[in-house]
Amino acid sequence: MAHPDHAPENDPSGLDTKDGQGQPAGPSALRRARSSFLKGVSYFSGDMAVFAKWMEKQFFLLQLLDWVLRGAAQVMFVNNPLSGLIIFAGLILQNYWWALNGFVGTLFATISALILQQNRGAIAAGLYGYNGILVGLLMAVFSNAGNWYWWLLLPNIFMSMMCPIVSSALASINSRWDLPVFTLPFNILVCLHMVATGHYNHHFPQVLIQPRSELPNITWAEIDVAKLFMSVPVGIGQVYGCDNPWTGGIFIISLFISSPITCAHAVLGSAVGMVSGLALSAPFGDIYFGLWGYNCVLACIAIGGMFYALTWQVHLLAITCAIANIMSTFGLPACTWPFCLSALTFLLLTTGTKRIFKLPLAKVAYPEKNLTSYWKLKKQEKAEKAEKERKEREEQQKAVEEEIFINKTEQLRLEEGKAGSETAEDKNGNILFERTAEMEECIIKDEKMRDDILTEVVLHDNA
Amino acid sequence: MAHPDHAPENDPSGLDTKDGQGQPAGPSALRRARSSFLKGVSYFSGDMAVFAKWMEKQFFLLQLLDWVLRGAAQVMFVNNPLSGLIIFAGLILQNYWWALNGFVGTLFATISALILQQNRGAIAAGLYGYNGILVGLLMAVFSNAGNWYWWLLLPNIFMSMMCPIVSSALASINSRWDLPVFTLPFNILVCLHMVATGHYNHHFPQVLIQPRSELPNITWAEIDVAKLFMSVPVGIGQVYGCDNPWTGGIFIISLFISSPITCAHAVLGSAVGMVSGLALSAPFGDIYFGLWGYNCVLACIAIGGMFYALTWQVHLLAITCAIANIMSTFGLPACTWPFCLSALTFLLLTTGTKRIFKLPLAKVAYPEKNLTSYWKLKKQEKAEKAEKERKEREEQQKAVEEEIFINKTEQLRLEEGKAGSETAEDKNGNILFERTAEMEECIIKDEKMRDDILTEVVLHDNA
Amino acid sequence: MAHPDHAPENDPSGLDTKDGQGQPAGPSALRRARSSFLKGVSYFSGDMAVFAKWMEKQFFLLQLLDWVLRGAAQVMFVNNPLSGLIIFAGLILQNYWWALNGFVGTLFATISALILQQNRGAIAAGLYGYNGILVGLLMAVFSNAGNWYWWLLLPNIFMSMMCPIVSSALASINSRWDLPVFTLPFNILVCLHMVATGHYNHHFPQVLIQPRSELPNITWAEIDVAKLFMSVPVGIGQVYGCDNPWTGGIFIISLFISSPITCAHAVLGSAVGMVSGLALSAPFGDIYFGLWGYNCVLACIAIGGMFYALTWQVHLLAITCAIANIMSTFGLPACTWPFCLSALTFLLLTTGTKRIFKLPLAKVAYPEKNLTSYWKLKKQEKAEKAEKERKEREEQQKAVEEEIFINKTEQLRLEEGKAGSETAEDKNGNILFERTAEMEECIIKDEKMRDDILTEVVLHDNA
Repeated sequence: MAHPDHAPENDPSGLDTKDGQGQPAGPSALRRARSSFLKGVSYFSGDMAVFAKWMEKQFFLLQLLDWVLRGAAQVMFVNNPLSGLIIFAGLILQNYWWALNGFVGTLFATISALILQQNRGAIAAGLYGYNGILVGLLMAVFSNAGNWYWWLLLPNIFMSMMCPIVSSALASINSRWDLPVFTLPFNILVCLHMVATGHYNHHFPQVLIQPRSELPNITWAEIDVAKLFMSVPVGIGQVYGCDNPWTGGIFIISLFISSPITCAHAVLGSAVGMVSGLALSAPFGDIYFGLWGYNCVLACIAIGGMFYALTWQVHLLAITCAIANIMSTFGLPACTWPFCLSALTFLLLTTGTKRIFKLPLAKVAYPEKNLTSYWKLKKQEKAEKAEKERKEREEQQKAVEEEIFINKTEQLRLEEGKAGSETAEDKNGNILFERTAEMEECIIKDEKMRDDILTEVVLHDNA
Repeated sequence: MAHPDHAPENDPSGLDTKDGQGQPAGPSALRRARSSFLKGVSYFSGDMAVFAKWMEKQFFLLQLLDWVLRGAAQVMFVNNPLSGLIIFAGLILQNYWWALNGFVGTLFATISALILQQNRGAIAAGLYGYNGILVGLLMAVFSNAGNWYWWLLLPNIFMSMMCPIVSSALASINSRWDLPVFTLPFNILVCLHMVATGHYNHHFPQVLIQPRSELPNITWAEIDVAKLFMSVPVGIGQVYGCDNPWTGGIFIISLFISSPITCAHAVLGSAVGMVSGLALSAPFGDIYFGLWGYNCVLACIAIGGMFYALTWQVHLLAITCAIANIMSTFGLPACTWPFCLSALTFLLLTTGTKRIFKLPLAKVAYPEKNLTSYWKLKKQEKAEKAEKERKEREEQQKAVEEEIFINKTEQLRLEEGKAGSETAEDKNGNILFERTAEMEECIIKDEKMRDDILTEVVLHDNA
Repeated sequence: MAHPDHAPENDPSGLDTKDGQGQPAGPSALRRARSSFLKGVSYFSGDMAVFAKWMEKQFFLLQLLDWVLRGAAQVMFVNNPLSGLIIFAGLILQNYWWALNGFVGTLFATISALILQQNRGAIAAGLYGYNGILVGLLMAVFSNAGNWYWWLLLPNIFMSMMCPIVSSALASINSRWDLPVFTLPFNILVCLHMVATGHYNHHFPQVLIQPRSELPNITWAEIDVAKLFMSVPVGIGQVYGCDNPWTGGIFIISLFISSPITCAHAVLGSAVGMVSGLALSAPFGDIYFGLWGYNCVLACIAIGGMFYALTWQVHLLAITCAIANIMSTFGLPACTWPFCLSALTFLLLTTGTKRIFKLPLAKVAYPEKNLTSYWKLKKQEKAEKAEKERKEREEQQKAVEEEIFINKTEQLRLEEGKAGSETAEDKNGNILFERTAEMEECIIKDEKMRDDILTEVVLHDNA
């Protein structure tokens, strides 16, 4: 969900290359190897800007594939086709039918955005695909008609093509507060589909979800620690509706390729979700199934480095996500509503501290880049401040010196005045007076004219 | 719900009158007859602007009646008292008690708007009445106390008088995005009333609405094609809560009088709703009863020509309305929530295509007028573009000619310069130099003064 | 919830002190006694601005206590630590455990706002505490685990510390329409907590709330008038979740100390709520328990004098609050949702009447002060209008006189012209012409220069 409007820089590992330039006298072979390694890494990590540029000149279907893969990864805020490819591999490992539905969803959401002539940069960054993949996947996951029920592709395609419409509409509202739309279109559309059909439907029946109506049987002795640990990757997999821990593991790898910070926050979020589930004595089954993790995963990624520059307040947020199971008791699946609402709340927060720095939406790329741009900004501010202070000090010095000079001149003149005051009056006095009279006339005339013009300008401004 | 701020034009059939003037040599008797017929039609079709102007000078109670009738028709976005009269006739055919409640609702909503001193033009266009008629009608329809339960008029009047308050509040929010409030006030108030009283109430019991809890028995062989066709007018009637197909038919006539485009879209919307109900395997009873139609009717009218200039994207929208039965499964009546939310979504959509042109809210009248004003705008744009291109071409020509002239002059001067360079220097050179020195002084002085003034202006702007 | 940005005035009883100065020849002893009594009252009524100023120089913990007490009173829109102290006394009378939870909630909400570096003036006015006290109290009230279940303090502290975050986020949205956040953060957070845990939870069980499913047994003969009267103070007590009528009575006293208008509206609101409950045939138990009153209390205070200058439309609003039991039928406690939504609706209302005057949010203090500032504004407007009219009349007079003078001069000149036209031409004509030529040159030059500058300015403005 990163914003695509950023100048494509060719040095994503800017800090390291600087190191290399800064100390040219070191063991150069090692350095050069490291530098070329980093350059190689930069080609397929981050947002793969070089690849994106190269893609622009390729065949349309290849471009479309690139956008679809980026869209698949953008669910996790990752703008990287390689990550998208690995994610599709994870989905295939989970379930062929779900993977197919996810692909169809991403594809048709992207095509619909093209038809509606949405912003080309946003399409190319996959920002119109990620809701499509979620719609496609979750409609397959929640369907009660079993796998390979081919009719499901019809509402899948229709709902995916609705995604860009809802995205565009929500963006019109959210942009007033410089907020992204997150996965709100997916939440809205999947909930609409589920409510419009429901469990008791001949064509598209949904799985039956009912509110809890009795005390769950929780015996703390029965807790399974291995399963509890496994719930961390499962929680990450549940972002895409997958309960296979291996799929979750593959997703972790795909995140690491693009951005290690994103990856760390995903794992952290899933762990926090698991712990908060235990704290609120949720049924162990739900926790093992990753239902307490996936909203925390997304919220943790979003706040931790993606839309905010990475500082300590991440930890504050991570705990927030205990609200993740809000909607399950309404008899509705939670989708990612809790994530969307809590993340939007945190992005709307305004504080007096400078440690919590919300990046403007147009500058959002990926955590590492955001962090470097934040550091640059801070350095620049510091430099400007230092420069300003230096100038002020200089000016003060100058003012002091001038005052001393003026005082001295005054003293001299006073002394001189005492000595030969008549001549001074005769010679300078008159001439000075004449010139002053002329000047005053000029000044008065000029000032009047200036005032007239100013009045006109002001009137013009108010008109 | 059309906006009233439009200059009252006396030639609603502008194209035809133009025809008449353009070819004065044709078979004039026929033409004249046709022209006078069109003029006659223009008196009671469209928004009856001539009649509205004539009404302004009439007795207050007569004016109020005009506003109430326009309010009754504005539910369908029609600003026409004749349509309103026919709609009331349809309501009386359906049920005397409901018609009475509808009239009371419209009347008190309009009176409340007058008391609250809302915009007089909007009141006169019936924009404060349409929520009132729906509140009055639907409170009677959903009441479980039977017809002629006179106490119902009390909450009816109270809720109708709340309509302008809720409308005004919602308009404060929606106007930020240049959106109308549609029937949101009606939805909010009727849902509030139903939830606040409920089925188990001594004073104002509501009909019992419960979520579906078992598979409906749908046998495709049992489908009744005649009833299915009848569901199209029934769906239009259900906009006012009426299930009588004759009432629906009367409503179709009332729409046709004011605007054929609106009428066509109403029928189209009802048909699309019926088909989408079949596609989602809704119980046949619901489809026959028109519950799948009325939201589609409203959405289709709103998007198809009312708030957008009429192009192909209407068809895109019409399909959208499958979301119409969202709320029925919540155990709440859907009211027109689905219509409001989907229409607002579509109005918020921003695209790069020029084929989807959202009319500014202040310019919205009725589809035919919107279309002509859109065409005018397009023609004007084209003319401007052509004009601009012409000018650019001329300027280029001029520039080329000038360059040729300058080149020639330069050549001449060079030749002349070679012949008598001394005299030129003696005569012109010195004088030119003197004048330049003077001019430079003046320019420097002027420029300095200008800079001073500009600085002052900038300071003043920033202050 | 009053806004803190107001200059601390030392004469809250400005009208009376003026009286004292205006008529110094009256029975001075009585006057002086009255004046000093009013001054004494001003020290602990209203928003206690003098005390707040004195507090600024005190020990931090003492300041924090002041903020917490103000926060406790701000639930009722009262910015007064004494009222807060009395409210805590009422809470202790109701239930020690609840009072403790309320105190903890207010304290941690205020601390969290300090950590997040929110606006210091708002914190000092208790604007970050009132959601905390409600969260703390209602979490204790709705808990099914009984009193002195110490673990409850953990979610209590967490949820209280979330209050400033949600407040800040909502304020970002609401400030676009100049609206306060009311108790929305409390409503959101308590509902989240209740839904996330629910009745069937091992750690934090909630009381069971279920939708009504049968006709309540209401016999009008059984109505208990004494209990009905008692429901008025109980309704005020229910704002803090208290059902003890004595606690409600103590709250009334605390309101009276700060602002009699607020107090009167609280009682009025509770009575209106009780009546509307009877009108909608609510079960008597709910009415006796004050559930129909507390939303009306808050709405009546908010609209009646707090955010609007106090005029007649209060009565219009008070009736509105029949919507108070909306959510009880959803199987969720209503919290103060109905109050928030109806009050926001009324604050968004725009009318043409000047009698309904919404105070800008930054000017809101307490009803008495709001009223005096509104009166001042009106007086000022009147004076300005009178002044304007006087000036216009003078100018008209002047214009008439001038015209007469010009006419006379013209006449004289015409007569003179007939007598000696040649000399006039010789003497004045030429000289006038010469001067005009010179002046015209100047004017042309000046105007050209002015135009140039204006063009530059305009360009600069557009750039």
